[in-house]
Amino acid sequence: MAFALLNRLTAKPGQRDRVVEILLESGRMFGDNSACQLYLVAESEDDPNLIWVVDLWTGEQEHAEALKTPELRPFIEQTMPLLEGMPEQIKIRPVGGKLPN
Amino acid sequence: MAFALLNRLTAKPGQRDRVVEILLESGRMFGDNSACQLYLVAESEDDPNLIWVVDLWTGEQEHAEALKTPELRPFIEQTMPLLEGMPEQIKIRPVGGKLPN
Repeated sequence: MAFALLNRLTAKPGQRDRVVEILLESGRMFGDNSACQLYLVAESEDDPNLIWVVDLWTGEQEHAEALKTPELRPFIEQTMPLLEGMPEQIKIRPVGGKLPN
Repeated sequence: MAFALLNRLTAKPGQRDRVVEILLESGRMFGDNSACQLYLVAESEDDPNLIWVVDLWTGEQEHAEALKTPELRPFIEQTMPLLEGMPEQIKIRPVGGKLPN
Protein backbone atom coordinates (compact mmCIF):
# COMPACT_ATOMS: atom_id res chain seq x y z
CA MET A 1 0.00 0.00 0.00
CA ALA A 2 1.24 3.47 -0.81
CA PHE A 3 2.88 5.39 1.98
CA ALA A 4 3.67 9.06 2.40
CA LEU A 5 5.37 11.33 4.88
CA LEU A 6 5.13 15.03 5.61
CA ASN A 7 8.46 15.95 7.17
CA ARG A 8 8.71 19.27 8.99
CA LEU A 9 12.25 20.48 9.64
CA THR A 10 13.22 23.66 11.47
CA ALA A 11 16.65 24.96 10.52
CA LYS A 12 18.72 26.98 12.94
CA PRO A 13 18.61 30.69 12.01
CA GLY A 14 20.50 31.34 8.76
CA GLN A 15 20.91 27.63 7.95
CA ARG A 16 17.82 26.92 5.85
CA ASP A 17 19.53 27.35 2.46
CA ARG A 18 22.28 24.93 3.45
CA VAL A 19 19.80 22.35 4.78
CA VAL A 20 17.78 22.62 1.56
CA GLU A 21 20.96 22.04 -0.48
CA ILE A 22 21.75 18.89 1.50
CA LEU A 23 18.17 17.63 1.18
CA LEU A 24 18.23 18.13 -2.58
CA GLU A 25 21.63 16.47 -2.90
CA SER A 26 20.67 13.45 -0.76
CA GLY A 27 17.35 13.14 -2.59
CA ARG A 28 19.18 12.53 -5.86
CA MET A 29 19.77 8.95 -4.74
CA PHE A 30 16.00 8.36 -4.91
CA GLY A 31 15.96 9.46 -8.57
CA ASP A 32 16.48 5.95 -9.89
CA ASN A 33 14.42 4.22 -7.20
CA SER A 34 11.04 3.46 -8.73
CA ALA A 35 9.62 2.92 -5.22
CA CYS A 36 10.02 6.66 -4.61
CA GLN A 37 7.20 8.37 -6.49
CA LEU A 38 7.66 11.87 -5.11
CA TYR A 39 10.28 13.73 -3.09
CA LEU A 40 9.30 17.36 -2.81
CA VAL A 41 11.53 19.79 -0.93
CA ALA A 42 9.78 23.06 -0.12
CA GLU A 43 10.29 26.17 1.98
CA SER A 44 7.64 27.67 4.21
CA GLU A 45 6.36 31.00 2.91
CA ASP A 46 5.74 32.29 6.43
CA ASP A 47 8.60 31.01 8.56
CA PRO A 48 12.16 31.71 7.30
CA ASN A 49 13.55 28.66 9.11
CA LEU A 50 10.94 26.06 8.19
CA ILE A 51 11.33 23.36 5.53
CA TRP A 52 8.79 20.76 4.42
CA VAL A 53 9.69 17.54 2.63
CA VAL A 54 6.83 15.51 1.18
CA ASP A 55 7.70 12.01 0.04
CA LEU A 56 5.51 9.37 -1.50
CA TRP A 57 6.52 5.73 -1.74
CA THR A 58 4.98 2.58 -3.16
CA GLY A 59 5.02 1.16 0.39
CA GLU A 60 6.33 1.65 3.92
CA GLN A 61 8.73 -1.28 3.55
CA GLU A 62 10.29 0.22 0.41
CA HIS A 63 10.74 3.52 2.25
CA ALA A 64 12.39 1.79 5.22
CA GLU A 65 14.78 -0.01 2.88
CA ALA A 66 15.72 3.20 1.08
CA LEU A 67 16.60 4.80 4.42
CA LYS A 68 19.01 1.94 5.20
CA THR A 69 21.30 2.92 2.31
CA PRO A 70 24.71 3.64 3.86
CA GLU A 71 25.23 6.50 1.39
CA LEU A 72 22.49 8.41 3.21
CA ARG A 73 24.28 8.52 6.54
CA PRO A 74 26.74 11.39 5.79
CA PHE A 75 23.83 13.57 4.66
CA ILE A 76 21.95 12.91 7.89
CA GLU A 77 25.08 13.64 9.91
CA GLN A 78 25.56 16.93 8.05
CA THR A 79 21.95 17.97 8.51
CA MET A 80 21.25 17.23 12.16
CA PRO A 81 23.54 19.91 13.68
CA LEU A 82 21.90 22.53 11.42
CA LEU A 83 18.41 21.81 12.78
CA GLU A 84 16.51 22.94 15.86
CA GLY A 85 15.53 19.63 17.40
CA MET A 86 14.45 16.53 15.52
CA PRO A 87 12.48 16.61 12.27
CA GLU A 88 8.77 16.07 12.82
CA GLN A 89 7.36 13.20 10.75
CA ILE A 90 3.66 13.03 9.93
CA LYS A 91 2.75 9.63 8.45
CA ILE A 92 -0.15 9.73 6.04
CA ARG A 93 -1.95 7.03 4.06
CA PRO A 94 -2.56 8.06 0.43
CA VAL A 95 -6.02 7.18 -0.84
CA GLY A 96 -5.93 8.67 -4.34
CA GLY A 97 -5.92 11.79 -6.46
CA LYS A 98 -3.70 12.93 -9.31
CA LEU A 99 -0.46 11.14 -8.60
CA PRO A 100 2.90 10.67 -10.34
CA ASN A 101 3.07 7.69 -12.69
CA MET B 1 7.18 29.69 -9.99
CA ALA B 2 5.87 26.40 -8.67
CA PHE B 3 3.42 26.57 -5.81
CA ALA B 4 2.20 23.98 -3.37
CA LEU B 5 -0.27 23.67 -0.54
CA LEU B 6 -0.55 21.35 2.43
CA ASN B 7 -4.24 21.33 3.31
CA ARG B 8 -5.26 19.96 6.70
CA LEU B 9 -8.94 19.12 7.05
CA THR B 10 -10.63 17.79 10.18
CA ALA B 11 -13.82 15.87 9.48
CA LYS B 12 -16.62 15.69 12.00
CA PRO B 13 -16.62 12.29 13.73
CA GLY B 14 -17.69 9.52 11.33
CA GLN B 15 -17.54 11.79 8.26
CA ARG B 16 -13.97 11.26 7.05
CA ASP B 17 -14.81 8.61 4.44
CA ARG B 18 -17.48 10.83 2.91
CA VAL B 19 -15.18 13.87 2.85
CA VAL B 20 -12.44 11.80 1.20
CA GLU B 21 -14.94 10.64 -1.46
CA ILE B 22 -15.91 14.22 -2.25
CA LEU B 23 -12.26 15.31 -2.39
CA LEU B 24 -11.41 12.51 -4.81
CA GLU B 25 -14.45 13.25 -6.96
CA SER B 26 -13.79 16.99 -7.10
CA GLY B 27 -10.12 16.37 -7.80
CA ARG B 28 -10.98 14.57 -11.02
CA MET B 29 -11.49 17.94 -12.66
CA PHE B 30 -7.78 18.66 -12.21
CA GLY B 31 -6.92 15.48 -14.13
CA ASP B 32 -6.76 17.25 -17.48
CA ASN B 33 -5.29 20.47 -16.12
CA SER B 34 -1.58 20.40 -16.86
CA ALA B 35 -1.06 23.21 -14.31
CA CYS B 36 -1.93 20.70 -11.57
CA GLN B 37 1.10 18.47 -11.13
CA LEU B 38 -0.02 16.65 -8.00
CA TYR B 39 -3.22 16.29 -6.01
CA LEU B 40 -2.68 13.78 -3.22
CA VAL B 41 -5.54 12.92 -0.86
CA ALA B 42 -4.37 11.13 2.27
CA GLU B 43 -5.66 10.06 5.65
CA SER B 44 -3.81 10.60 8.90
CA GLU B 45 -2.58 7.35 10.41
CA ASP B 46 -2.98 8.69 13.95
CA ASP B 47 -6.15 10.76 13.95
CA PRO B 48 -9.32 9.09 12.60
CA ASN B 49 -10.82 12.44 11.60
CA LEU B 50 -7.83 14.07 9.93
CA ILE B 51 -7.28 14.38 6.17
CA TRP B 52 -4.33 15.89 4.33
CA VAL B 53 -4.44 17.10 0.74
CA VAL B 54 -1.13 17.99 -0.90
CA ASP B 55 -1.36 19.83 -4.18
CA LEU B 56 1.39 21.06 -6.44
CA TRP B 57 0.81 23.59 -9.22
CA THR B 58 2.94 25.22 -11.88
CA GLY B 59 2.13 28.56 -10.23
CA GLU B 60 -0.05 30.35 -7.68
CA GLN B 61 -2.01 32.11 -10.43
CA GLU B 62 -2.86 28.81 -12.14
CA HIS B 63 -4.06 27.43 -8.81
CA ALA B 64 -6.23 30.50 -8.16
CA GLU B 65 -7.79 30.15 -11.62
CA ALA B 66 -8.55 26.46 -11.12
CA LEU B 67 -10.38 27.30 -7.89
CA LYS B 68 -12.62 29.75 -9.75
CA THR B 69 -14.19 26.93 -11.80
CA PRO B 70 -17.95 27.06 -11.06
CA GLU B 71 -18.09 23.24 -11.13
CA LEU B 72 -16.06 23.22 -7.92
CA ARG B 73 -18.64 25.11 -5.88
CA PRO B 74 -21.08 22.22 -5.21
CA PHE B 75 -18.20 20.10 -3.90
CA ILE B 76 -17.14 22.86 -1.51
CA GLU B 77 -20.74 23.30 -0.35
CA GLN B 78 -21.03 19.56 0.30
CA THR B 79 -17.78 19.40 2.19
CA MET B 80 -17.95 22.38 4.54
CA PRO B 81 -20.78 21.09 6.80
CA LEU B 82 -18.87 17.81 7.24
CA LEU B 83 -15.78 19.56 8.64
CA GLU B 84 -14.84 20.84 12.07
CA GLY B 85 -13.98 24.45 11.30
CA MET B 86 -12.17 25.70 8.23
CA PRO B 87 -9.45 23.73 6.43
CA GLU B 88 -5.97 24.85 7.39
CA GLN B 89 -3.83 25.83 4.41
CA ILE B 90 -0.04 25.78 4.64
CA LYS B 91 1.53 27.50 1.61
CA ILE B 92 4.91 26.14 0.67
CA ARG B 93 7.39 27.10 -2.05
CA PRO B 94 8.79 24.05 -3.87
CA VAL B 95 12.52 24.23 -4.48
CA GLY B 96 13.18 20.84 -6.07
CA GLY B 97 13.40 17.11 -5.63
CA LYS B 98 11.89 14.19 -7.52
CA LEU B 99 8.74 15.71 -8.96
CA PRO B 100 6.00 14.65 -11.38
CA ASN B 101 6.70 15.39 -15.04
